[in-house]
Amino acid sequence: HSSFDLAQHPHRRYNPLNGEWLLVSPHRALRPWQGQQEAPDTAIRPAHDPTCYLCPGNVRANGAQNPGYTGTFVFDNDFAALRDDVPAGTVNQGGLLRAEAESGVGRVICFSPRHDLTLPEMSQADIRRVVDVWTEEFRILGARPDIGYVQIFENKGAVMGCSNPHPHGQIWAQRTVPGEPAKESGQQLAYFEEHGRTLLTDYLAIELAEKTRLVLENEHWVALVPFWAGWPFETLLLPRRAVRDLTQLSEAEKDAFADALRRLTIRYDNLFQTSFPYSAGLHQRPTDDQAHPEWHLHMHFFPPLLRSATVRKFMVGYELLANAQRDITPEWAAERLRSQPEVHYKSFSL
Amino acid sequence: HSSFDLAQHPHRRYNPLNGEWLLVSPHRALRPWQGQQEAPDTAIRPAHDPTCYLCPGNVRANGAQNPGYTGTFVFDNDFAALRDDVPAGTVNQGGLLRAEAESGVGRVICFSPRHDLTLPEMSQADIRRVVDVWTEEFRILGARPDIGYVQIFENKGAVMGCSNPHPHGQIWAQRTVPGEPAKESGQQLAYFEEHGRTLLTDYLAIELAEKTRLVLENEHWVALVPFWAGWPFETLLLPRRAVRDLTQLSEAEKDAFADALRRLTIRYDNLFQTSFPYSAGLHQRPTDDQAHPEWHLHMHFFPPLLRSATVRKFMVGYELLANAQRDITPEWAAERLRSQPEVHYKSFSL
Ligand SMILES: O=P(O)(O)O[C@H]1O[C@H](CO)[C@@H](O)[C@H](O)[C@H]1O
Ligand SMILES: O=P(O)(O)O[C@H]1O[C@H](CO)[C@@H](O)[C@H](O)[C@H]1O
Repeated sequence: HSSFDLAQHPHRRYNPLNGEWLLVSPHRALRPWQGQQEAPDTAIRPAHDPTCYLCPGNVRANGAQNPGYTGTFVFDNDFAALRDDVPAGTVNQGGLLRAEAESGVGRVICFSPRHDLTLPEMSQADIRRVVDVWTEEFRILGARPDIGYVQIFENKGAVMGCSNPHPHGQIWAQRTVPGEPAKESGQQLAYFEEHGRTLLTDYLAIELAEKTRLVLENEHWVALVPFWAGWPFETLLLPRRAVRDLTQLSEAEKDAFADALRRLTIRYDNLFQTSFPYSAGLHQRPTDDQAHPEWHLHMHFFPPLLRSATVRKFMVGYELLANAQRDITPEWAAERLRSQPEVHYKSFSL
Repeated sequence: HSSFDLAQHPHRRYNPLNGEWLLVSPHRALRPWQGQQEAPDTAIRPAHDPTCYLCPGNVRANGAQNPGYTGTFVFDNDFAALRDDVPAGTVNQGGLLRAEAESGVGRVICFSPRHDLTLPEMSQADIRRVVDVWTEEFRILGARPDIGYVQIFENKGAVMGCSNPHPHGQIWAQRTVPGEPAKESGQQLAYFEEHGRTLLTDYLAIELAEKTRLVLENEHWVALVPFWAGWPFETLLLPRRAVRDLTQLSEAEKDAFADALRRLTIRYDNLFQTSFPYSAGLHQRPTDDQAHPEWHLHMHFFPPLLRSATVRKFMVGYELLANAQRDITPEWAAERLRSQPEVHYKSFSL
């Protein structure tokens, strides 16, 4: 009769950032898979695609022409889910039918003029330009009195609903604070009020001591598989210093962010020797009038692949109706990511 | 300058069952889609497949042989995420690394011996047998002192992570109450304590009066697109009477449940003339020692298809990092489902 072992026995883990639990079933890692196979992205793409609406100089669906940009390029999403011109209004029937008008803005950020690259294939200097655009967009949008939260994210890969392989991300900025950052605000505030330090400062100290879930480090940033990771190879990328938003980062911290982004995404691509799909995004303080000393900026990576370039994790029945569930342990996932080289696999075949 | 209109303007809606908000962007319904296409399920299947581990008489991966069943068939999942033999144990480091052993059981329910059928193609009498098995399993598992919650669900279609087309569902029953039912418990309890009626009793009364989100009704059940639906064609199927779990349903209510299940899933298949994928499941009271008069049993259907048999909704970047988002309105989705016939499209081509 063995004693409780996180590597062997089914258990629940708590996510202190959002207050939710997840089910971990380590023993299920080896079940056979006869279901849907994903199509790995093996396309060879041109550096410039005349049919791509994000490439320099091309014309978009609404008739606008992209400039001949050479670094990054930002514009308002032609099919944004959020817009500015929304009349105020609310609905409330007995607290059961409740709605509120929501306004905001959707932006698209091309990471590079090159149609055939992705973040892990870009240089650190080029990724640093992406960090600068994120910072500038956050500063400008966050300063607007009608914007309470700025969500910066990237959907990478067709399996993550990305409809164009040209390297790009999005920003959805809106009046109210959406669900996930609102939960993280509440959890971080409660922790900060009790301890006088950010939740992620103390969490990071534990992880740096334990080492089992670390993926990579540099002088200013750490990437790790959080103890409560839901997706198989989910990671959390965070600065050692408790900054609330991108505008507080020093030049050295922004360089180090670009370095960490590059090395982390290279490890992802190397894991299954494929352009690794994910949704990733920054969580930062709400852009209201408050100081938010409780907030510790961080970036989540949610990648769906589980066992190979073609076998993914599905967040379906039990996960939608009950709570998140994972088969492989976060510790095992971290070990796999740690053992990857930081030279991109494609550079060997060139 | 128009006034606020739910059918036109971006807005947030509140889900009183789980306390979360979602973003609705009605104006985005017509954006072009150039991304991933789903493969519709057009396979013609035999009534019995010798390679299927769920068909009567066949041998499963663990060597067990299925009986020659003629109705439903239930067995312990050979690769269950939950098991009985878990030693007790907890981890807690500063409230930041928290884990608890979790025990439970995973069951598989074959809905029919016929490999080539799905719920909408089965007779009402055969679906009623599925309802009876769900009820019996809930009764037996729920009576166990070590089981605090019983989650009954079905993943249908390869796109929903279903690895075998043989019509079947699952039960994951466990010691603790998972996240979603725990949230619904809290919300329903607060409402019940304030009003002395279940939340869904009052919500249903509003929907029956407004009619715009109804899909179908019979004497005992109503299917509707909830005001706060996140998935494009999400529905809520609920009994008119506030019962806490399946064991409280009368014979007539169980017959009517089978009727509603059949008619709802036929409408789904007819919508895009395809075997409509979804994850669906029952939410019922926790199986602890308490009475739970606040609980109103209901069934959620979460189908991913958006515009056709090949274009789905992705719950990715913004949705994972911020909150759920939808393009078409729940009212429009309900209207589409309401306008479908209740004769299965395949029966015309036979
Ligand atoms: O047990 P199955 O049907 O193979 O597995 C499927 O449903 C489970 C419960 O929703 C999920 O955890 C799996 O990711 C999915 O592939
Ligand atoms: O705007 P895109 O990239 O076409 O759309 C993609 O990302 C959005 C934000 O996560 C999602 O709402 C869409 O479902 C997805 O297809």
